Amino acid sequence: MIPSKQDILDAYQRVKPFVHPTPVLTSNFLNELSGASLFFKCENFQKMGAFKMRGAVNAIQCLSEGEKQKGVVTHSSGNFGQAVALAAKTLGIKAYVVMPENAPSVKKEAVEGYGAEVILCESTIQAREASSEKIIKEKGAAFLHPSNNLDVILGNATATLELLVDYPDLDVVITPVGGGGLLAGTALSVHYFGKNCNTLAGEPIQVNDAYRSLQSGRIEVNETSETIADGLRTHLGNINFPIIQKLVSEIICVEENEIINAMKLIWERMKMVVEPSSAVALAAILKQKETFRNKKIGIIISGGNVDLKNLPF
Amino acid sequence: MIPSKQDILDAYQRVKPFVHPTPVLTSNFLNELSGASLFFKCENFQKMGAFKMRGAVNAIQCLSEGEKQKGVVTHSSGNFGQAVALAAKTLGIKAYVVMPENAPSVKKEAVEGYGAEVILCESTIQAREASSEKIIKEKGAAFLHPSNNLDVILGNATATLELLVDYPDLDVVITPVGGGGLLAGTALSVHYFGKNCNTLAGEPIQVNDAYRSLQSGRIEVNETSETIADGLRTHLGNINFPIIQKLVSEIICVEENEIINAMKLIWERMKMVVEPSSAVALAAILKQKETFRNKKIGIIISGGNVDLKNLPF
Repeated sequence: MIPSKQDILDAYQRVKPFVHPTPVLTSNFLNELSGASLFFKCENFQKMGAFKMRGAVNAIQCLSEGEKQKGVVTHSSGNFGQAVALAAKTLGIKAYVVMPENAPSVKKEAVEGYGAEVILCESTIQAREASSEKIIKEKGAAFLHPSNNLDVILGNATATLELLVDYPDLDVVITPVGGGGLLAGTALSVHYFGKNCNTLAGEPIQVNDAYRSLQSGRIEVNETSETIADGLRTHLGNINFPIIQKLVSEIICVEENEIINAMKLIWERMKMVVEPSSAVALAAILKQKETFRNKKIGIIISGGNVDLKNLPF
Repeated sequence: MIPSKQDILDAYQRVKPFVHPTPVLTSNFLNELSGASLFFKCENFQKMGAFKMRGAVNAIQCLSEGEKQKGVVTHSSGNFGQAVALAAKTLGIKAYVVMPENAPSVKKEAVEGYGAEVILCESTIQAREASSEKIIKEKGAAFLHPSNNLDVILGNATATLELLVDYPDLDVVITPVGGGGLLAGTALSVHYFGKNCNTLAGEPIQVNDAYRSLQSGRIEVNETSETIADGLRTHLGNINFPIIQKLVSEIICVEENEIINAMKLIWERMKMVVEPSSAVALAAILKQKETFRNKKIGIIISGGNVDLKNLPF
C-alpha cells in the first residue's frame, strides 16, 4: 500500500508556496568524468539549506487545527531540527527540538535562530526519545519523525517531482540514503512521474544498514556511526522501508575517501557548498561507472549545511 | 558613442548557445540583514566558473574568419585566461594565454586543461605585453583584452540582460569593479533593459582606482595590489571608462574585512562557492544600507574560482 500519485501532487500544492523551486545545474567536466549526463537538483539551495524543509512543511500542514495549536516536536541534531524550526515559524506554530547536549553550538543556535525552543538531553537514543515523550505529554505537541513519517516522505518527494517536470526523460534518479525519508520520497516520484526511470541510492559502506536491509529483507542497524556523511548515520523505518524495498533498484556502497573526493569535485567544479552526505550519490556514480554510462541521471543534492572551519580537504 | 541595444541583443544570440543560463538565487536571511530584496545572478555557476566566458565567446565570434584561423592571444593570470581557453576550444580555434611564471600551477593547469597553449613570462606588465606582442607577430593571433574590448563588454552585458528578463523591475544592479569590463557591460544592459534602474559597483578601498577615476574624470591607477579580491586589482581602460562615466551612479569602497565577512555570509547562507571579488558587491550593500533599503537589487556574482586550501575563514 504505497501512497498515490495524487498524494504527491497534493503535497506539492501544500509545499510549493513555502519552498524555493531549486535550480538544476550541470557540469561538462563531471559529465565527461562519469561518462553520463548528470543533472544536479540543488536542494542545498533550499530554505535552511536542505531538502528537509519540504517534508517538514508538508507534515506540519497535514496536522489538524487542534494539533497545530499545540505545536510540534522532533529530535534531531541535524537538518531536520532546523527544518521543523523554520517550517513551524513560517506556518506560525510552536516548535520544540530535542538535541543532544554535545551538539555543536552552531547547530543549536541555528535551530534557535529559526525560533524553536531547544531542549537539551543526553546523547543517547533513549534520552532523546524520553525527552520527546515528555514534551508530547506535557505540551500535547505532535511528534514529527525526521524520516519515518509518510507526510515527511511525501514532502521530500516534491524535489524529484520538480526535477522530472523539468527533465522528464531521466533514466535514473539517485540520492544518498540515511534514514530513508529522501530515498522513499524520491522513489515514489520516480515511480509516478518518470518514464522507464529507476531509483538508486549511494550509502557510506561504514553505515550501510540500508544496503544490508535490502539484502536481508528486514531493517538492519549500524554497529558504528563513523562516517564523514553525518546525515546518513540513521537507519530505515517501518514506513519508508516497504517503499524502498518495492521501488529502489540498487544501493551502492562507497568508501570514505570516495565521498571526500566527490565532495571536493562538487565544490571545485560546480562551485557549490554541499555537505558530505550529498556527495555520496556522485561517489556512487563514479565508483560504478558501468551502471550509469551514457544515461541521463538526476542527482538529489540533499543539503549544504557544513562547518566551513572543518572541511575534509 | 555607446553601443546600442541591438548590439547587446546580437551579442546574446552569439553567446547563448555556448553558456549556461545561470540561475538567480535569493536568501531571506540576507534580505533581512540588508533591509533590501537581493537577487543573486550566479555567474559562479557559469562555464569555467565566471562571467568571463560570456565576453570571451562573444569576442572570438566577432573575429573575421581569417583572424579565427590564426587564433587568439590574451594575457591573464586569472579567469579571463581560462575563459579564452575554453571559449576557443568550444569554437574550434587556437588560443595562446600569456601567464606570469609565478602564477599558481593550478591556474596554469586549468588553462592547459581547456586546451590552450600557455606562454610563461616574468611577472611584470611589460613582460606580459612583450610576450603577447611576440605571439601576435609570430602567429598572427588576435589579441583579446580581458576588459577593455567592446565585444568582451557586450558579451559580459548578457548576464544582466538575462537577469532583467527574469526580474524586469529591479531598482539597482550592482557588480564588483576591477578592469571595468563587467561593470560597463552591466551598465549598458541596465540602461537599455532596466526600468528606472541604476548601476552601482563595489570596489576594495585598497585598489579603488575606479572610484577615484569617477571622481577625477580620468583613468587612475593603483599604487598597490594588496587586496584579497584578486580579480579587482586591474584598472579601467579607454573603452570601458566612458561607458562607466556615463552610466554608473556610484562606486562604493569597502574594507578587506568587509569583503571577507560578505564572502563568508554567501558561503554559509547561500551554500555557494564565490571568490572574494564576487563578495565585494554584497559588502558594499551591507556597508551602505541606507542607499539600498527596501529596493530590489540584482547582484552579479562574478565567479567562484577560489583555492579551497586558502580560504580567509
